[in-house]
Amino acid sequence: MSTARTDSEQVELANTALYEAVERGDTVAMGRLWLDDPDTAVSCVHPGWPVLRGRSEVLRSYALIMASTDYIQFFLTDVEVSVAGDTALVTCTENILSGGPAEEEGELGPLVGQLVVATNAFRRVGDEWKVWCHHGSPVLAGRDEDEEDGEDGEPAA
Amino acid sequence: MSTARTDSEQVELANTALYEAVERGDTVAMGRLWLDDPDTAVSCVHPGWPVLRGRSEVLRSYALIMASTDYIQFFLTDVEVSVAGDTALVTCTENILSGGPAEEEGELGPLVGQLVVATNAFRRVGDEWKVWCHHGSPVLAGRDEDEEDGEDGEPAA
Repeated sequence: MSTARTDSEQVELANTALYEAVERGDTVAMGRLWLDDPDTAVSCVHPGWPVLRGRSEVLRSYALIMASTDYIQFFLTDVEVSVAGDTALVTCTENILSGGPAEEEGELGPLVGQLVVATNAFRRVGDEWKVWCHHGSPVLAGRDEDEEDGEDGEPAA
Repeated sequence: MSTARTDSEQVELANTALYEAVERGDTVAMGRLWLDDPDTAVSCVHPGWPVLRGRSEVLRSYALIMASTDYIQFFLTDVEVSVAGDTALVTCTENILSGGPAEEEGELGPLVGQLVVATNAFRRVGDEWKVWCHHGSPVLAGRDEDEEDGEDGEPAA
């Protein structure tokens, strides 16, 4: 029985690797995971942020986030992969648990839960899938399992 | 002198057409602009919304937005196109001016300004570029020209 992975499965692994690198605070892995092609600019939108473009700006933003986060864990749900040729789009929900610096030595800082939806684009380079863009945004409305209603933003395209 | 457009220029026109269709409330144009390929699912995230997937769900959401918006205009700035093969990513800032229903007959409803950043993916189909995904999100922090500070969300990947 073949153990060869489909394109979709490979893309999903690359998507998971992106979040695991953030969890580990692994800047080297981040540099390896993002597309490195002078002809194809990468871009990144963190939730609530403006657009960041180019490897150096994007990787610097992750380094900043990882440096200022003592603890972060992503529980990815509702992951869907759409492949067309050498490009793939992943949409998923990031259920994020993160913690700030502890107030007392040896304790974990206060944990914050966050619900973010992401669209991540990948390009096939050889037999690897590299991150072309990440766009994450806060879910403010329309959650079925919402305990308390968030801000009900005016929908716009 | 050739008037042939580059891939980038064609993609930018397709991106503009997407917003113009919303401004006109043109559901027929929307259906034509979005990718229609049973093997490649489309997806859409409106600002603050969860992920919508598939043509029927995406187009229905636009129909709902257009039906509930009396006036909407997009001033696109900071438009950047990244092309790789038959796929293109557009990142841009949507400076949105929208209006609700008028309180009095013959008057324009109250106008609301909104700042949204978008990542839009396009696929080349024949000699056209079709929308594969749209992801728009509110800019909550980091605006230079901000008159009043928005919510300063905790950045997360």
